[in-house]
Parts: sequence; C-alpha cells; structure tokens
Amino acid sequence: MRTAVVIGTGLIGTSAALVLAGRGVTVHLVDHDPANARTAAALGAGTDEAPEGPVDLAIIAVPPAHVAATLADAIAQGMARAYLDVASVKGGPRRGLEALGVDLTGYIGTHPMAGKERSGPLAATADLFEGRPWVLTPTRDTDTEVLNLALELVALCRAVPVVMDADAHDRAVALVSHTPQLVSSMVAARLRNADETAVRLCGQGIRDVTRIAASEPRMWLEILSANPGPVADVLAAVAADLEETVGALRALQSADDGKRREGAEGIEDVLRRGNAGRERVPGKHGAAPTTYETVAVLISDQPGELARIFADAGRAGVNIEDVRIEHATGQQAGLVQLMVEPRAVAALTAELRERGWALRQQ
Amino acid sequence: MRTAVVIGTGLIGTSAALVLAGRGVTVHLVDHDPANARTAAALGAGTDEAPEGPVDLAIIAVPPAHVAATLADAIAQGMARAYLDVASVKGGPRRGLEALGVDLTGYIGTHPMAGKERSGPLAATADLFEGRPWVLTPTRDTDTEVLNLALELVALCRAVPVVMDADAHDRAVALVSHTPQLVSSMVAARLRNADETAVRLCGQGIRDVTRIAASEPRMWLEILSANPGPVADVLAAVAADLEETVGALRALQSADDGKRREGAEGIEDVLRRGNAGRERVPGKHGAAPTTYETVAVLISDQPGELARIFADAGRAGVNIEDVRIEHATGQQAGLVQLMVEPRAVAALTAELRERGWALRQQ
Repeated sequence: MRTAVVIGTGLIGTSAALVLAGRGVTVHLVDHDPANARTAAALGAGTDEAPEGPVDLAIIAVPPAHVAATLADAIAQGMARAYLDVASVKGGPRRGLEALGVDLTGYIGTHPMAGKERSGPLAATADLFEGRPWVLTPTRDTDTEVLNLALELVALCRAVPVVMDADAHDRAVALVSHTPQLVSSMVAARLRNADETAVRLCGQGIRDVTRIAASEPRMWLEILSANPGPVADVLAAVAADLEETVGALRALQSADDGKRREGAEGIEDVLRRGNAGRERVPGKHGAAPTTYETVAVLISDQPGELARIFADAGRAGVNIEDVRIEHATGQQAGLVQLMVEPRAVAALTAELRERGWALRQQ
Repeated sequence: MRTAVVIGTGLIGTSAALVLAGRGVTVHLVDHDPANARTAAALGAGTDEAPEGPVDLAIIAVPPAHVAATLADAIAQGMARAYLDVASVKGGPRRGLEALGVDLTGYIGTHPMAGKERSGPLAATADLFEGRPWVLTPTRDTDTEVLNLALELVALCRAVPVVMDADAHDRAVALVSHTPQLVSSMVAARLRNADETAVRLCGQGIRDVTRIAASEPRMWLEILSANPGPVADVLAAVAADLEETVGALRALQSADDGKRREGAEGIEDVLRRGNAGRERVPGKHGAAPTTYETVAVLISDQPGELARIFADAGRAGVNIEDVRIEHATGQQAGLVQLMVEPRAVAALTAELRERGWALRQQ
C-alpha cells in the first residue's frame, strides 16, 4: 500500500491515517468539515489536498448512517482500488449499498474495536488499535486483493484481525457493547433526582458501572439506530432477568419460609450467572486459575510478624496469594504457610532467608 | 479511646483494628473462626486474647444477618462502654435489636463505604477508609458519648463522617451500591452462553460495567437479603426504563417515519438522562467545567507541526484541551489556537518560546 484516502477525520479515521502516514503511505484526508481535515494534517496524519488519481485504499470513517452514501459516491468516482469502512455496525451499511445497486467486489466492511471517551482528530493516536480486535466481514463477492489490503491495514495498526459474518458481528456488538452502554445509562439515570446525601455514598462499584454513561448521546444514537433489532433482543433478555430478580427480592420479604428460600435461590442464581459471564470477559480476570506452592516460615508471637513477612515479600517483588497460620499447642512460636505462584518460590525463599526468617522444609 | 474489641476479623474489622492498634489502642480480636483472629493478630491488628474487663468500644464487624444476635450477646455480657456495627444495611439490624428488647442507648449503627474485591483479614489495610464516607445513624436514644466514640473511630480511620437516618441509608445504598451490583451481574450473565468470537470483541466498556459481577455471591446474598424492599423499588424503576427502551428500539425498525422519530427521541432521552445522572457521581468526572484560555501559535504548512506543539506542551506538563486552526487564505502559514487551563498559560508560552515557536498576541 502506497497511497490512501481517509474520508472522515474523527478519532478512528485520523488514528488510522497517523499509522499509515508514519509508515510512509501518502494519505489524503477528507472531511465534511475542512477544519477537521486540516487539524488531522497538522497532526502529521497526511495532506488535506485531493489525490491526483485513484489511490490503493479508501478508508470510509464516517458515522454509520452516512457510510452507504459516502461509499457509493467514492466507488462511482473510481477513487480507489479497494474500499473499506470502519463503522461500528456492519449489516445495515451492507444492505444500504446493495439497495443502491453498488458493485461490492472492491469493498469490505470492517470494525476496529477501539475507542475513547474523547472524539475528534485531536484524540487520535497511532497506537489506538494496538492489540485490539479488528473485525473483517468479507463475503463470497469480496476480491482477495481487497481482503489483503484490509489485512495489511490491520497489521500496520498492530490490531488483531477477526473474520466474522456481518450479522453475527452486529449481534455480538449488541451483546458486548451496545447493551452495556444502555444499561449503564439507565443505572446512572436513577441518580439524576437522588438526594445529595445518597449521591455522596457512591463508591468505585457504581463509578465503574456508570463510566460509559458519560458517552456522547448523538454518537450513540447513531450507533443504536443502525443496530436496533439485535440490541432490543439482548435488552429484552436483561429485562426478563430484572423482572425475575424484582420478584425474588419481594419473595425475600415474605412471611413464608419456602418463599423466602426461593427468593434467596433466585438472587444467588443471578449472582452466580454473573460470576460465570464475567469469567468469560477477556483480560486479567479471565486468566486461568493458578495453583500455588507453599513456603513455610516460623514466626514468634510478636504482633506484626506477618506484616513484616509481607513487607519482605514485597521487597522481593512477590505477591502472597493466601496464607495459613498454625500455632503448635503450648508454644509461643507458630508456623505460617505462604501460598505463592510457583515461579515466585525461589525469590521469596532467598529474600526471607536473607532477612533472617527461619524456613521449614515442606 | 484506649481499649477496643473487634468481633469479626474480616476485611472491615481487621482494617479498623489495624488503624486502632497503630494509634496505640489495645485491640482484642474475636472471630467465630479462631484462625482468622490469629491471622489478624499476626498482621499487627491486636491480640486474640480476651479482654480482662469492659473495653471502651466494641466494633461488631460480622455479616448483616448476625449483627443483632452478636450485639445483643455482647451487650448482655457488658463487654464495652459503647457498641457499634459496620454492616452495610442499617434498618434491619436495628429492628432486630428492638425485637430482642435490647437497651440501645449504648449502640450506634454505622457503615463505612469501603470495600475491595478480596475479603478476609489478609486483604485488610490501615488506609482502607481514607477519604471514604462513613455513615453514622444515631437516634434520639443514642448517648452522646457513644456518638463521640464513633466519631473518634471515623477520624482515626481518616474517613468522612456522614449522619443519616437508618432507613434513608438503606434506600441510598440500594440506589448507589446494591442495584448496580445486580445490574452488573445481569449484563455479565448474558455472556455466559455467548459465542467465543463474540466474547473476543469485549472492550473496556463492558469490562468496567461487569467488574463487580465478579463479587462473592454468598456475601452479596447476605447484603441483599437484609435490604430487599429498597433494592426491589430501584430495580423495578430500572426495569420500567428497560421496557421503554426495548419499545423505542423496536420503533426504530418501523416503516412509519413518526414512530421512528419517537423511537429515536426515546433512545436519546435515556442516554441524556444517563449523562445527567453520571455527572452527579463524585470523582473527577463530577468536577465543575473549566473555562479555558487561548494561546495562539504560528505554524508552517509542514506535516506534524501540531504534533510537535503537543509534544512541547507535554514537556512543560501542560494538557491542551482543545485546538482550532486558521489558515490565512493564499498563505502557507497558519494560526493555531491552543485552549488550556488558565493556570497553564505561563508555563506553555515559556516552553513554546524557548522551543522557537512564534506566538501571536491575542
């Protein structure tokens, strides 16, 4: 890839342009607001002058509702050898293009799963896509050359390509992105008219749950308007769960023992299903459970002995995962069993010995 | 305060004990599992030996369902001059004590709004409560001496005392803590049976919304069981909002223009109410909006000029909040207007001048 056009120099378009320009690709920047394209150019994302002939790749980075018309126009102009969009919904734009009778062999719908709370070219960075999934939705009609240009873009952005069917993509983002957005907004909305004293009690839990409720309503209305069916389906399932949980809470107030037990079971069930779902979210919490090894240390009965062991372990960069204390009957001294990751045993034992602790062979 | 008993050496009890022991208070540690009390003692939180006579303050840090019985027992023994509990629900324990016919003049219900994903004495730290609200629920019957001992504890823990009615507290935590927990679990539960490809698309949004879905079901069942009415009320309001939003999404799929417009209005409304509610959450996002000042810089038409200005501003520790670019017609050079916080103007202009940029007087 040697030349590209980016249409729409917002966060995503400008970030992709920064990556390409940084790799020596000549990038032409276009935006319905010329000041935006000028800002992107001034950031080093390319030039806001028009290309002289067809480029290798045209990247359409406009809101979902404008993707089909913008693409059809670019294809009619013969702007590029290959075209892709980066909109967060994939079924609608494709059906829009089909309705316009556009030849789709030169097009591939894509969606980089990257974003920020801030939008616009100034929020753009060349590392926005690093390590993030970038969905590609080729069809039987897609030229292999077009797929390969898209894969080249994803590789240059250091993103992880994921091939999916367009409709499966839309159901997936309804589940992992669009529904969480709406639910976060609804939890936050409950605070709007709350007493000031109540609001003072907010902690990290609600802060995390409502963080994305600060998102831009106009942008989200565009995204949700392009994917209403799949989002309504997931949201309806959450609503059914909510209704059942309200019922379970009411049952907890019953005078009837059996009803109260049923209520408790219902509450515990939703909490446990939440645990199971949360474990599937990629990230450090999704990591496989570790089995620990034990390091046994003799301690005296002085207060703070365990705190000192923790401080010494911290100095060796070792995290103690769990601990058990055994006191031999009638003795002042006790045995502490420290559970640590297997790879940390050597560092921990060396540090503790150096600090004068007596270690017991296991 | 010179002596204290902590009954229940979990996260909260041990953390409070660490603070008191660190200030020279003699702390006696009690737990239904003696190994827990021993661990807390080994951490330097006090001694697991019983006190010889009545102490100044007894802190009951057991699960909500056990508070009333534990308190009644301690009061019957004459264990202390004053008693407080730290359970996350306040109305139920109080009614439990009243039902047991206990004299409540020596008791005050309290709730420190602090927690962690990990529980147990090993997760305890002396700084757990720093800067966090600590709710106190005195009644007309509460001795002033008891209130003052509680205020002393809160001050030693560097927490912020908030006086509330017990039932108002329970409604507030239903809103800001218990409902977010259940909703987070329900969003996470949707992922349980999702396709692996869909789960790969999870981003920071759903990661934040579902973080607390990893919480311990047994502990939360205890909390929710002690506060079912207020939680059911808030949850029912969220459920009504959800139903309406599902309806709005379905309306977006209608062939009728008027219905689609109504649907869009409904979606935008919930997103905007979410914005308004989120703004009330204390933390950096709740800060008052700042007005910015402008620093104007002349730039040439070379790519990357703006990126270099940003890098130079970063070196001066200045964050550029917004930017506007004006190109004089027919000229190669342009004028960049940098918006920064008023207190950053001096540092920014000094740095830019030193780096050779031409600044324009405003």
